Amino acid sequence: MRCKFCGREAYVRLHYPKMFLCREHFIEYFERKVRRTIERYKLLKPEEKVLVVVSGGKDSAVTAHVLKKLGYNIECLHINLGIDDYSEKSERYARAQCEALNVPLHVVRVRELLGAGIGELRTRRPTCSYCGITKRYIFNRFAYENGFDAIATGHNLDDEASFIFSNIMHWNTEYLGKQGPLLPGEGKFVKKVKPLYELTEREVVYYALATGIEYMVEECPHARGATSIEAKEVLNAMEEKRPGTKVNFIKGFLRKRSLFEAELKEAPLGECRVCGMPAQGEKCSFCRVWGLEKPLELKVKG
Amino acid sequence: MRCKFCGREAYVRLHYPKMFLCREHFIEYFERKVRRTIERYKLLKPEEKVLVVVSGGKDSAVTAHVLKKLGYNIECLHINLGIDDYSEKSERYARAQCEALNVPLHVVRVRELLGAGIGELRTRRPTCSYCGITKRYIFNRFAYENGFDAIATGHNLDDEASFIFSNIMHWNTEYLGKQGPLLPGEGKFVKKVKPLYELTEREVVYYALATGIEYMVEECPHARGATSIEAKEVLNAMEEKRPGTKVNFIKGFLRKRSLFEAELKEAPLGECRVCGMPAQGEKCSFCRVWGLEKPLELKVKG
Repeated sequence: MRCKFCGREAYVRLHYPKMFLCREHFIEYFERKVRRTIERYKLLKPEEKVLVVVSGGKDSAVTAHVLKKLGYNIECLHINLGIDDYSEKSERYARAQCEALNVPLHVVRVRELLGAGIGELRTRRPTCSYCGITKRYIFNRFAYENGFDAIATGHNLDDEASFIFSNIMHWNTEYLGKQGPLLPGEGKFVKKVKPLYELTEREVVYYALATGIEYMVEECPHARGATSIEAKEVLNAMEEKRPGTKVNFIKGFLRKRSLFEAELKEAPLGECRVCGMPAQGEKCSFCRVWGLEKPLELKVKG
Repeated sequence: MRCKFCGREAYVRLHYPKMFLCREHFIEYFERKVRRTIERYKLLKPEEKVLVVVSGGKDSAVTAHVLKKLGYNIECLHINLGIDDYSEKSERYARAQCEALNVPLHVVRVRELLGAGIGELRTRRPTCSYCGITKRYIFNRFAYENGFDAIATGHNLDDEASFIFSNIMHWNTEYLGKQGPLLPGEGKFVKKVKPLYELTEREVVYYALATGIEYMVEECPHARGATSIEAKEVLNAMEEKRPGTKVNFIKGFLRKRSLFEAELKEAPLGECRVCGMPAQGEKCSFCRVWGLEKPLELKVKG
C-alpha cells in the first residue's frame, strides 16, 4: 500500500482516521497531532521551562523527543526506583535517550534517597500504589524547587482511556474529576501535562521505531498481571470493531467530566509538618508512607 | 457435579456466586432472588395491582410467572407491534403463557390502533426508537386508565448492565439519572419496576427451561445487529474473566447514580394537547411521532 500524501511505500496503516502513511509523513502526522493536543488543551506556552519525566520506556522518550523537536525548553528527570536490574537498565536507557537528544538529565535514586528500593518497603499499601506516591512526590518537588513551569509525562491515549474505563467499571469515580491532559498548578503543585493524550500506544511505538528512539521494552516486575492491562485489552477489542472508540471515549469523558467534580474533596490543603509540601492531613502521603520525620533532601545526579 | 444443597445431580452451574444446583434448588434460588430484589429496592407492596408487559419472550414470561408464584395480583398486557409474522407468533406465545398461568391478558394491536405497524411508519427516528416510544406510551396509558399501581417489565441484569455500559461508553449520561430497578410513579406516569434486575439472562433462560415456560426465541427483525448486543458481548467477556463484573457494575452505578441527576431535565411536564398525557412540549412524543391530532382510544382485546 502507498502513502496517502506522496504515494511512496507505506510505513504504517492507521486505523482512525483510516490511512496509510510513509515514514516521513507518519512522523509529520504524529508531531502535528502532539502540537494540536498542546494547543487544544492549552498545555504549554512557548517560553515555559518543562521537566519531562523519563522512565527509559517508549512513552516518555517519545514525549521528550517531540517536545524538543517542537522547540520547547526541556530538561529531563529520571527516577531510579531501586528495583535491581530493572532499574539499572531503565536508567541506562534514559541516559542514552537524553544524550541522543542533547538534553540535560537529572537522576534521583530512590534507594540512595530513602535507604530502600520500591518493592522493599514494608507497608500496607500495594507496591504500585506507594511507587506512584513516591514518583509523583519526587518529580513535583524537584520541579517546584528548580523553577520548572510544567511537568510533562508520557501518558498516552491507551493509558488514559483504560484508566477512566476501569475506574468507571468499578465506579471509583472520585478519581475522575481531575483526570485529563492538564492538571493546573496550584501552590506548591507544579502544572502537569500529557502531550501524548490523543496518541495511541501503537502510534507511539511506530513513532519510536520511525525515529530510531531506543527504549526499555521490559515491564516493571511489580506491574505484571495488573488489571489496567485487562482494561486495555477490552478497549482494544472494542476499538477493533469500532475504530475511534478510545479517542471518542476520552473526548466524551472530558465533555462530561464536570459531573465528577461533585466528588472532589474540597478539604483545603495544608502543609506537611515534615517537608512543607502540600498535605491533606498533618503529613503528606509521601512522608507518611516512608515514615519520615526529617525533611528529605533531594540528592540529584547530573 | 452435585447440588450444593441436596447432593442430587446438578441442573445448572452458577458462576457468581459459584455453585452447582439441582433443578428444584435452582428454582428456589431464582425465586428468592426475585423476592429479595423486590424487597431491597422496594419495588412492590403485596396489595398492589400489577400490570406485567409480556412480549412473548423469555424475560417477561418469567417475570409474570414468578410474580404470580410470589402471590402478586397481576394482569398482563401484550402489545402486538404489527411486524408481520414476527408479531403474530409473539402474540400466540404471550397468549399461551398467560393461559398456562391463568392470568388475564389484554392485547393492544398497533396496526389496528394506528393504521400501520412498527417498521412501516415514515419518520426521521430509527425504528427501535419510535417502537420504544410507542410501547412505553401504550403500557403506561393502559395501566393509568385501568387503575394499575405498577408496571412490571422483564429487563434482566444483562439488559441493564449493557444499557448503562453503552451509554457510558458514548457518554450519553443524560439517560442515566433515572435508570434503575424502580421508576416511581408521578402524575399520569405509573410506577415502573424491574423484578429481574439482578438476574442474568442465562439464569432467566435456565429458569424458563426448568419451569417449562415456552417462549419466542426469535429476535425482532428490526433489532438485528443492534449495538446493545455488542455491549452485552463485551460485558460477558469481562464477566468470564471476573465473575460478578455485571452485578457489581450495576450496584456500583446505583451507588453513584446521583452524579447523573445533575443532568436530568428539570422542565416541568405539561399535558399533551392531543391526548392529555404528560408531555415535554405541547404534544407528547407518542402523538408527535404518529402525527396524531385526535386522542387515540386504546382498543383492547381480552
